[in-house]
Amino acid sequence: MILSKFGEKMTQKSGILQLMDDLGNALQSDKPINMLGGGNPAVIPAANRIFQQVFQSLGDGFLHSAGNYSTPQGDKAFLLALADFLNRHYDWNISEKNIALTNGSQNAFFCLFNLFSGRYSDGSSKNILLPLAPEYVGYADVHTEGNYFVAGKPGIELLDYTTAAGEVVDGFFKYHVDFATLPIDDSIGAICCSRPTNPTGNVLTDAEMAKLARLASDNNIPLIVDNAYGMPFPSIIFGDATLTWDSNTIMCLSLSKIGLPGLRTGIVVANEAVIQALSSLNAIVNLAPTRLGAAIAAPLLQDDRMKTLAEEHIRPFYRQKVDYAIRLLKEAFADIPLKIHHPEGAIFLWLWFPELPITTFELYQQLKSAGTIILPGEYFFPGTDNLAAYRHAHECIRMSYAQSDETLQKGIAQMAEFVRRAYA
Amino acid sequence: MILSKFGEKMTQKSGILQLMDDLGNALQSDKPINMLGGGNPAVIPAANRIFQQVFQSLGDGFLHSAGNYSTPQGDKAFLLALADFLNRHYDWNISEKNIALTNGSQNAFFCLFNLFSGRYSDGSSKNILLPLAPEYVGYADVHTEGNYFVAGKPGIELLDYTTAAGEVVDGFFKYHVDFATLPIDDSIGAICCSRPTNPTGNVLTDAEMAKLARLASDNNIPLIVDNAYGMPFPSIIFGDATLTWDSNTIMCLSLSKIGLPGLRTGIVVANEAVIQALSSLNAIVNLAPTRLGAAIAAPLLQDDRMKTLAEEHIRPFYRQKVDYAIRLLKEAFADIPLKIHHPEGAIFLWLWFPELPITTFELYQQLKSAGTIILPGEYFFPGTDNLAAYRHAHECIRMSYAQSDETLQKGIAQMAEFVRRAYA
Repeated sequence: MILSKFGEKMTQKSGILQLMDDLGNALQSDKPINMLGGGNPAVIPAANRIFQQVFQSLGDGFLHSAGNYSTPQGDKAFLLALADFLNRHYDWNISEKNIALTNGSQNAFFCLFNLFSGRYSDGSSKNILLPLAPEYVGYADVHTEGNYFVAGKPGIELLDYTTAAGEVVDGFFKYHVDFATLPIDDSIGAICCSRPTNPTGNVLTDAEMAKLARLASDNNIPLIVDNAYGMPFPSIIFGDATLTWDSNTIMCLSLSKIGLPGLRTGIVVANEAVIQALSSLNAIVNLAPTRLGAAIAAPLLQDDRMKTLAEEHIRPFYRQKVDYAIRLLKEAFADIPLKIHHPEGAIFLWLWFPELPITTFELYQQLKSAGTIILPGEYFFPGTDNLAAYRHAHECIRMSYAQSDETLQKGIAQMAEFVRRAYA
Repeated sequence: MILSKFGEKMTQKSGILQLMDDLGNALQSDKPINMLGGGNPAVIPAANRIFQQVFQSLGDGFLHSAGNYSTPQGDKAFLLALADFLNRHYDWNISEKNIALTNGSQNAFFCLFNLFSGRYSDGSSKNILLPLAPEYVGYADVHTEGNYFVAGKPGIELLDYTTAAGEVVDGFFKYHVDFATLPIDDSIGAICCSRPTNPTGNVLTDAEMAKLARLASDNNIPLIVDNAYGMPFPSIIFGDATLTWDSNTIMCLSLSKIGLPGLRTGIVVANEAVIQALSSLNAIVNLAPTRLGAAIAAPLLQDDRMKTLAEEHIRPFYRQKVDYAIRLLKEAFADIPLKIHHPEGAIFLWLWFPELPITTFELYQQLKSAGTIILPGEYFFPGTDNLAAYRHAHECIRMSYAQSDETLQKGIAQMAEFVRRAYA
């Protein structure tokens, strides 16, 4: 089968694709698997009750949504409900013209990164600046040709963590943007960060966000914020943080992490020119975005159930879960030099094994054979120069904590066993 | 806002995008509109009853589908059900490894055309051969850069049409592939046709399909068949036609025209290498395809309700509708030189006004102002050389007949009024 250059790039078995094959194969094996590798949100009964309720109450509304294309911009009733919701709670003064839907967040980033980086008609090329790597693995391959990322290496602060119950635990660290070394010039087409960050659970501080916003605006480029885990839904964010938006910010939200990943609903809030560009892309790539997620979410936005669902059910669930996982980790790794990224949000823990004698890619392979899936750190550094020599990247792993207590127990125990052996 | 070359191409206001803006604006105006322009399927009560039934009976199955990502290839239960269904009815001897889901057909064609045409790593470039233009307007803009289509001009046969009631009506024509002039050499990356054809309702004959399949296989390139309106669902196809597939055929199906366009479910049946390439692309562009369409269709495939729905409700509905629209057209255009493409399937009628003194783009603009939306022929000729000089393209229009009787009456009356004036 002879493929175009685009086809060759999109099907090369490197990075994320190799990983997804591995995961798929592991899941199809007969052995029981401790799956700490994926990004699926947890099953939260209170959330499911609400979704089932809305779903059942849709009635003929289901037929309307299923039976008609929306415009390429997305389901109008949802756009209106979300604009109202955001104005009500954040006073952003936006209209439905500031919002477009995509078939999930990944699709939004495929569109945005190809719109704001790559080759330009003046002969230049521009990159997406990721001010703080590690960043989301799914970004890495989205360019239709080439790779247009540059990433800043993080500063590392050592600190304690205070659990929801008020217990102070040591052995944590937090990444910060190293503004002094950020490469910003006219070769940058946009700045992008996930907040809370997948894979680390880091939440960039309000001060960092303000600096990034200024940097973007000073350079006349957009700031893209991947808010898939943030406020106002799913609000898997544990500390104080402010959500800000202005017309130079492209804010990406999602219905996936409130519990509806199968409905593939990504949301972009941006100025009207960006929304029009996304609508055009939607028309060409998708004709129109899928509607059922929008149909289920709209009533939850209208009466603010979405907010209470997030704040009273989803956030507490994950806060309890992350504290449980941390307790297991601290017990299992008591004699092993583990540091954990300060858990501030998202559904992952980012573990650092300083001076680990093997790479975490080797650790990942060993654990996969043994029956536990985690993700090696190296996949989370798109745009980082000379990654092979950047030891820190190879000393970290991402694990999902959105799993059953039993899976966490078994997976963490097995992880500790192999990490201990590697250090021995 | 400075966009990449990709961004400039995808947002330029030409062709389909201009058209969609026009349609959107027309729909938002206060005037009543006779909408004969869109591609939305009709509301068919018998179909809706079945969808509502399955939807309600999903119960916790809804939460499973909504609450979990599928693999990038698509919902496993659906893939298995469809492979069984196709083997049962067509004996294709395929497995679930021969099927991938996409977020609607448009998304499948975005993927397929960019995989099988464009620039190649050996420095060459290849085109998609559309053996018979007019072809679907949605193909035109999908390449991530450039435009890689070549199209054959059709042969025209004049013939009568026999209605479902057995009445023979004259004034019809049918397009045929002009194999003698088809440009096929190693600059062609794939052959593609829609069957039934959007916009004409043409169904390429079994003999034409066999010739195209041989041409593709002789040239070691795939034959892509856009079967969105064909068998086994929605089966909006009125004559005798055989559905064939082999490992060199990429068969694209859809849940849109059975009545679920809002759920964005495209289906590709192909050899395993193609399916793997599509899965990779899905991972990068969409993470995973949306699941609810698959969840609703799977039980309908398992017990063959999908087939009876299509054959006993959907096909008869459109057959009755197309005969009604033809009767209206013949009455309204009795004194006007109208020829109608022989209606063999799909939800459109393709009207030809021989020697029309104005272009149908002008007619389209006049009708839009007056309150009737149809689509001018020129948009349906991607890849046709020197289109401006190809008079036939500018003498045709596409109208949807999947509308209420009242909309058809008013729209056709207004169309006749303006066409009569143009000829006067």
